[in-house]
Amino acid sequence: MATITVPDCVPSVQEDVEQLHKAFSGWGTNEDLIINILSHRNAAQRNAIRQAYAETHGEDLLKALDKELTSDFERAILLWTLESSERDAYLANESTKRWTSSNQVLMEIACTRSPKDLVLVREAYHARYKKSLEEDVAYHTKGDCRKLLVPLVTAYRYPGDEANLVLAKTEAKLIHEKIHDKAFSDDDIIRIISTRSKAQINATLNQYKNLFENDVEKDLEAECENDFVALLTSTIQCLAYPEKYFEKVLRDSINKRGTEEWDLTRVVTTRAEVDLKIIKDEYQRRNSVPLDRAIVKDTGGDYEKMLLALMGHEEA
Amino acid sequence: MATITVPDCVPSVQEDVEQLHKAFSGWGTNEDLIINILSHRNAAQRNAIRQAYAETHGEDLLKALDKELTSDFERAILLWTLESSERDAYLANESTKRWTSSNQVLMEIACTRSPKDLVLVREAYHARYKKSLEEDVAYHTKGDCRKLLVPLVTAYRYPGDEANLVLAKTEAKLIHEKIHDKAFSDDDIIRIISTRSKAQINATLNQYKNLFENDVEKDLEAECENDFVALLTSTIQCLAYPEKYFEKVLRDSINKRGTEEWDLTRVVTTRAEVDLKIIKDEYQRRNSVPLDRAIVKDTGGDYEKMLLALMGHEEA
Repeated sequence: MATITVPDCVPSVQEDVEQLHKAFSGWGTNEDLIINILSHRNAAQRNAIRQAYAETHGEDLLKALDKELTSDFERAILLWTLESSERDAYLANESTKRWTSSNQVLMEIACTRSPKDLVLVREAYHARYKKSLEEDVAYHTKGDCRKLLVPLVTAYRYPGDEANLVLAKTEAKLIHEKIHDKAFSDDDIIRIISTRSKAQINATLNQYKNLFENDVEKDLEAECENDFVALLTSTIQCLAYPEKYFEKVLRDSINKRGTEEWDLTRVVTTRAEVDLKIIKDEYQRRNSVPLDRAIVKDTGGDYEKMLLALMGHEEA
Repeated sequence: MATITVPDCVPSVQEDVEQLHKAFSGWGTNEDLIINILSHRNAAQRNAIRQAYAETHGEDLLKALDKELTSDFERAILLWTLESSERDAYLANESTKRWTSSNQVLMEIACTRSPKDLVLVREAYHARYKKSLEEDVAYHTKGDCRKLLVPLVTAYRYPGDEANLVLAKTEAKLIHEKIHDKAFSDDDIIRIISTRSKAQINATLNQYKNLFENDVEKDLEAECENDFVALLTSTIQCLAYPEKYFEKVLRDSINKRGTEEWDLTRVVTTRAEVDLKIIKDEYQRRNSVPLDRAIVKDTGGDYEKMLLALMGHEEA
């Protein structure tokens, strides 16, 4: 459920490279041209452009863009142009260096990428930072958040659809018991959330609802002034209903006084080729306003144009 | 530093398959023939044989072997014939079902395989058991051992040679402090041991020795009646001096009243194509007896022949 549109007749890679080069040359920069090209190419096409650009002009396209562009627009173009595992490695690395709010980003990457893609992110992290992702996560976090985040970023979950319902019932009861005792960071809660397959976790959440007539998240939300519990709650949401998780990130980022551009940029650039269509629908349902309109209201200029293009609007 | 020998002139895969099939046919089994073929083929050759056998005879070679062979000899042939990531997945799965002594096997697989190979083991685990390795490890262990084993089996360490000596000094001091306080399962010890690259851990162990005039393992050994400390100590040894770790496993397995065949079989079959040569040298140095002679003294029959063949002895 991607939102981006690729023209039926895509120019050759070399043509795109020359157009981009022209957009940087001379006095001023042709931002519209940059947007029109890059936002309407899929991942494989963007990679081919980046490679051909380096071969033809002896400079990484990202370096060239970095020289020409600024602030939120630059960040959107940068994240969009990076190859997806490299982009996630970049976002994760950045998050290990900021404070607690960025735990959310690490969790988001760990829980919404496929198991195989998460391994590719870890590989890209090695290549780019000469360290392992878990090494940095473990080093820069502590306490309960570390206890949850390290197994999340190192998980290689079973991707199959099978679920063991007896096990789901047992573990639903176990989770309920721990929440009742306010033992939120109990070893077993962490174990279940960080190692079980998504299908199994889903079955467990359903059993929880059947048995205790409430969602786990609701039972946890009563405690949400606690940072760790807030992280745990969004982890569960991310695993079970990613579109609801992303809708909330967008809603929070747009409704804040000013706009949390980093969150907005991240969600749009990382999901545009995956499930942004579903997230948009969820946004409309929850806010009674189309996401594009909310974005137009809160952003402007080339940044706005870029986001709208990624959301499927035609040429700027 | 492998020990196995492959003939200069290897018969065709189809020829090997027919010979093996003949070895199973008729009254009795020709064990010598099975040993002579399988023990003198490398991993790629054995995989090709297994595949061709299934295509030609409509039966997995391992099934056929299973019907014909028994006990320790069978186990040696089985482990040797399995593709290496499948073999490790099999050993790991078996270990999650046994009691604490098998934590050692999980740790050994996690710490002596390359980061990429460990990911392949986790992939093979998915395929074979429809679950993730960490899921089973976390479910079947608890307390401090779980706290160490889960990050070990999920690690994807940075494989480079670079080491940060300032960091090594800081972390050596940190480890020393925790050991002094008898906080062996402290979060930071686990973090360092389970996430740092082997090169970095090595630098930290060296700094420890420089600063405190003793090996970490020696400082820990004073506490080795504690199961967790014993596991932690062998983890460190496995990461820094795998040949010493394996020598000790062999020594313990051979010196026990009777012989711990499972350990012996595992080390010989999993290391014969990797570093058994170095382990043999270490064994000779530590015990003043060649490993082959020790094995001959303690084992017999086809099992003995198979182990010796894997250690480089010519045709039985």
